[in-house]
Amino acid sequence: MSLDTAASKPHEALAALLRDEMDAVNALIQERMASEHAPRIPEVTAHLVGAGGKRLRPMLTLAAARLCGYDGPYHVHLAATVEFIHTATLLHDDVVDESAQRRGRPTANLLWDNKSSVLVGDYLFSRSFQLMTETGSIDVLRILSNASATIAEGEVLQLTAATDLRTDESIYLQVVRGKTAALFSAATEVGGVIADADPAHVQALFDYGDALGIAFQIADDLLDYQGDTSATGKNVGDDFRERKLTLPVIKAVAQATEEERAFWVRTIEKGRQKDGDLEHALDLMGKYGTLDATRQDALGWAEKAKAAIATLPEHEIRGLLSDIADYVVARLN
Amino acid sequence: MSLDTAASKPHEALAALLRDEMDAVNALIQERMASEHAPRIPEVTAHLVGAGGKRLRPMLTLAAARLCGYDGPYHVHLAATVEFIHTATLLHDDVVDESAQRRGRPTANLLWDNKSSVLVGDYLFSRSFQLMTETGSIDVLRILSNASATIAEGEVLQLTAATDLRTDESIYLQVVRGKTAALFSAATEVGGVIADADPAHVQALFDYGDALGIAFQIADDLLDYQGDTSATGKNVGDDFRERKLTLPVIKAVAQATEEERAFWVRTIEKGRQKDGDLEHALDLMGKYGTLDATRQDALGWAEKAKAAIATLPEHEIRGLLSDIADYVVARLN
Repeated sequence: MSLDTAASKPHEALAALLRDEMDAVNALIQERMASEHAPRIPEVTAHLVGAGGKRLRPMLTLAAARLCGYDGPYHVHLAATVEFIHTATLLHDDVVDESAQRRGRPTANLLWDNKSSVLVGDYLFSRSFQLMTETGSIDVLRILSNASATIAEGEVLQLTAATDLRTDESIYLQVVRGKTAALFSAATEVGGVIADADPAHVQALFDYGDALGIAFQIADDLLDYQGDTSATGKNVGDDFRERKLTLPVIKAVAQATEEERAFWVRTIEKGRQKDGDLEHALDLMGKYGTLDATRQDALGWAEKAKAAIATLPEHEIRGLLSDIADYVVARLN
Repeated sequence: MSLDTAASKPHEALAALLRDEMDAVNALIQERMASEHAPRIPEVTAHLVGAGGKRLRPMLTLAAARLCGYDGPYHVHLAATVEFIHTATLLHDDVVDESAQRRGRPTANLLWDNKSSVLVGDYLFSRSFQLMTETGSIDVLRILSNASATIAEGEVLQLTAATDLRTDESIYLQVVRGKTAALFSAATEVGGVIADADPAHVQALFDYGDALGIAFQIADDLLDYQGDTSATGKNVGDDFRERKLTLPVIKAVAQATEEERAFWVRTIEKGRQKDGDLEHALDLMGKYGTLDATRQDALGWAEKAKAAIATLPEHEIRGLLSDIADYVVARLN
């Protein structure tokens, strides 16, 4: 989802506060995406990294480290690590989803080919682990290798669960934790770990990242059905057309009459869609109020994120992190 | 290439000597390829891991550790790590090469789909780093993340270099170091590192793995043009049909007349092949003796491998490693 449209932009205030360190992160990313022997690697990487994106994940790592009083150099390495893992994941995702667009530009798999996206993703993933070893912290490596395994597991689970009507809210949550929240929570947790913060504070940072990531993904899935297409860069109903079971549909399926269930089986499980199906799907979501209920869930996770960091010491950055939790769900109100 | 056909089988003698530890490695692989949430993961992994293969790479790690007097438990983790990285690489390679067969069975990308191969590869790669963190050794993580980056870089380089007639022997060697030798040399090096061996011995183990991996790949590329198809499970000339520039062709291109060069441009660079082209290509390799010259190169690398470990203390395992170097090129004589 785009964060650029609302009036209040706490992530921009955080970016301004962390400008010098974000510059260092960007310089490190530029340096480490180079390849002496294979120019295809920086070409593909630059296409994606250069397309912008808000660098929210690396910023969370910098913010968490600063919030915990860290004054060493390695939060910059960790922030670049997190962005490399994120970029590798996007490259592989676009191959898996056969996507043609990302951040308003043609995807790498379309501009080059699937081969390049797979292999450059592998390269960036390896680079991310090289960066982590430079910090000398085994804890950091443990946290981020766990997160990487959870991400891949969530994506595999999504392969089979997305079009299976037995997918319920708890499986959805597992997928969301994998595909989105695992990297958010690892990003904030390693910031605390590198600062050698109190274990309770590290836990609070983890909980914040986890809840923020879930709120973020639920909001994204909701906006797919009711977003302003000019703001999100997506078309309303893309997930429906791609037969992806997300929360608004899962909630409608759970309450479906026999006839409605037959509709979901045909359109999602069997993928036999025709004109008017998206409108009917939206009617069914309206009937059961599932868009409202999904919005409430997203707001609930944002509240959990804020509650988690409320246990940390008062700090300018803590306030901005709290505002970011409000912001990712702000357009849903 | 298959190692199962010649009379003398030093890798089997090594496997017998390391049987208990290899059993522990296999048990750890079984345990860690599981996934609570996504059964697709162990299905795909078991298909590839269960298809056999000689587990040469993990065996090299165990052998190196034992040769250096290691008596702790972590060489088992490292051996499983090496096998996971190898398996992840094979899954992604088969997607990149659009392969239909591997180890005499249909590939995972054919049985399931490219998506599963990409994501399960990512999962195994993450799992490998989790295993490494359990050893507590940052050195090991540094070595294997460097190797992973080199592997991916070599594969990307191959994407562009394979059909480009400007690819010379030094670029070929770079590709081979990436796609094959990097994991061999890391496998032996980490065995020495976990045993806290003398740096000169660690270097010798690295040099052995590097030269062995290069000999192994050159032999593989040579057998593509002159192998016994029943032994290799490949058809003669697969690389030619797939337009892959390997050493026998590179040597022929380097000496080509203008007319011969036009032939290579048409068949390799442009990929416009017709009946009789493979035979003509073999004639040209015969004219310049490039198969013999390639064989000499492979033998030379096997000698380098043996010379490297000759500096290590006398040990039964050292003898078997030396025999393995002879063995990977034995069928070329």
